[in-house]
Amino acid sequence: MKIILVGASGTIGRAVGAELERRHDVVRVGRSGGDFRVDITDSDSIRRLYAEVGEFDALVSTVGKVHFGPLERFTPEQFDVGLRDKLMGQVNLVMLGLASIRAGGSFTLTSGLLNDDPIREGASAAMVNGALEGFVHGAAVELSRGLRINLVSPTVIEEALPVYAPFFPGVKAVPAREAALGYVKSVEGVQTGRVYRIGWSRDT
Amino acid sequence: MKIILVGASGTIGRAVGAELERRHDVVRVGRSGGDFRVDITDSDSIRRLYAEVGEFDALVSTVGKVHFGPLERFTPEQFDVGLRDKLMGQVNLVMLGLASIRAGGSFTLTSGLLNDDPIREGASAAMVNGALEGFVHGAAVELSRGLRINLVSPTVIEEALPVYAPFFPGVKAVPAREAALGYVKSVEGVQTGRVYRIGWSRDT
Repeated sequence: MKIILVGASGTIGRAVGAELERRHDVVRVGRSGGDFRVDITDSDSIRRLYAEVGEFDALVSTVGKVHFGPLERFTPEQFDVGLRDKLMGQVNLVMLGLASIRAGGSFTLTSGLLNDDPIREGASAAMVNGALEGFVHGAAVELSRGLRINLVSPTVIEEALPVYAPFFPGVKAVPAREAALGYVKSVEGVQTGRVYRIGWSRDT
Repeated sequence: MKIILVGASGTIGRAVGAELERRHDVVRVGRSGGDFRVDITDSDSIRRLYAEVGEFDALVSTVGKVHFGPLERFTPEQFDVGLRDKLMGQVNLVMLGLASIRAGGSFTLTSGLLNDDPIREGASAAMVNGALEGFVHGAAVELSRGLRINLVSPTVIEEALPVYAPFFPGVKAVPAREAALGYVKSVEGVQTGRVYRIGWSRDT
C-alpha cells in the first residue's frame, strides 16, 4: 500500500512509520520536513500535498495542535486553535483526500483520552477529541467505494512524559510503539467508524 | 431559582419552560422573541444578554444550528455553521455567563444522539455533538464555586417528526416533555459533567 503519513517526524509518527514501512510504501509528510510538507490549517496546502503525492491507499494523521489553559481564562481565539488545527486540519485531510484515495482505502486520525478522562486545563482538547469521535462515526456511515475511517485515541505517550507528565497525574503512559498498533489495525484491518483506545478504556 | 432559558420558543424550549416555571423564575430568551433576545454566534450579543439579565442561578440552552448534507459535498463553510452556532454558541453562553452566575449554579446545554448513532448527511451534527460532550466533561472538572455543567442529548423529538422523520429511519421519537426531564435533572439535581441521554442509550 502507498500510505501518506502526516506527522511523520513526531513522537507517535516515527513509531507508526517504523512499523508501517516494513510492509508498505510510506510517504512521510511534516510541517517542516519529510518527503512532502503540509500546513493542515491551510486547505490550499493540503490540496497541493495531494496533487504532489497522487493516488494513495491510506492517509494516517498523527498531528494536531490544541491550546491548554485554565477554563475561566480561555479566549475564543484559544478555542479556535484546536478547532482549526487538530479538528478541522484532520477533517480537511479526509475531505480533500477523497478525490485521490483509491477504492478500499482508509483514513486514520488521532484524538486522545481527554474527552472521556478530563484533566485541568484540557477543556479545548476534550472538545476537539469529542468532535473527532463524532466526525469519524458520522463519516464512516457515508463513505463510498469501500473507504474506511477510524480514530486512534492514545493515552499519554511515554516518550512525551518529560513535557506532559505534570498535566496527567496518575495516568499510565504507553510507549509510542504501542500506540502505533492502533494505526496498523486501522490501516491493515477491515473495520470502520471505530475508536481505538490505546492504554486506557472508556468508563461507561 | 432564576433560570435563563435560551431557545424558549423552540420545540424543546417550550416544554422545558413549562416544566421549570412551576417552581422557578424563568427568563425566556430567543433569537427573535421572548423576554430578551440573543444571537449566540455573536459574543457581544451574549454579553449584552447577561448585562441585561443580571445575576442568575441556571443557564439552559436548547438551541444550536448545524448544516445537514452529503459528506462528500460538505464545504468548510458548512462545517463552520455547526462549529460557530451549536458548538461555540453554546460554549460561549457558558464562558461569558461565568461572570454573573451565582455560586452553586448550573449550565445545561443540548446535543443529540448523532455522534454515537450516526445517520446519512449528519457528519457535522455528529462532530458538534461529540465536541459538546467533550467540552462538558472537560469544563465540569474545572468549574469553581460549586458550579455545575451537564448536557442533554435527546433522540428525535416527536413534535419535530414532520421535518426530521425522513432523516431518522427506525428511530423512536420521544415527546418534548420527556426530553424536558433531562433539563430538570440537570438544573435541580446535584450532578455535573454528565450527559443525559433521553430516549436512547449509547452502544458500548
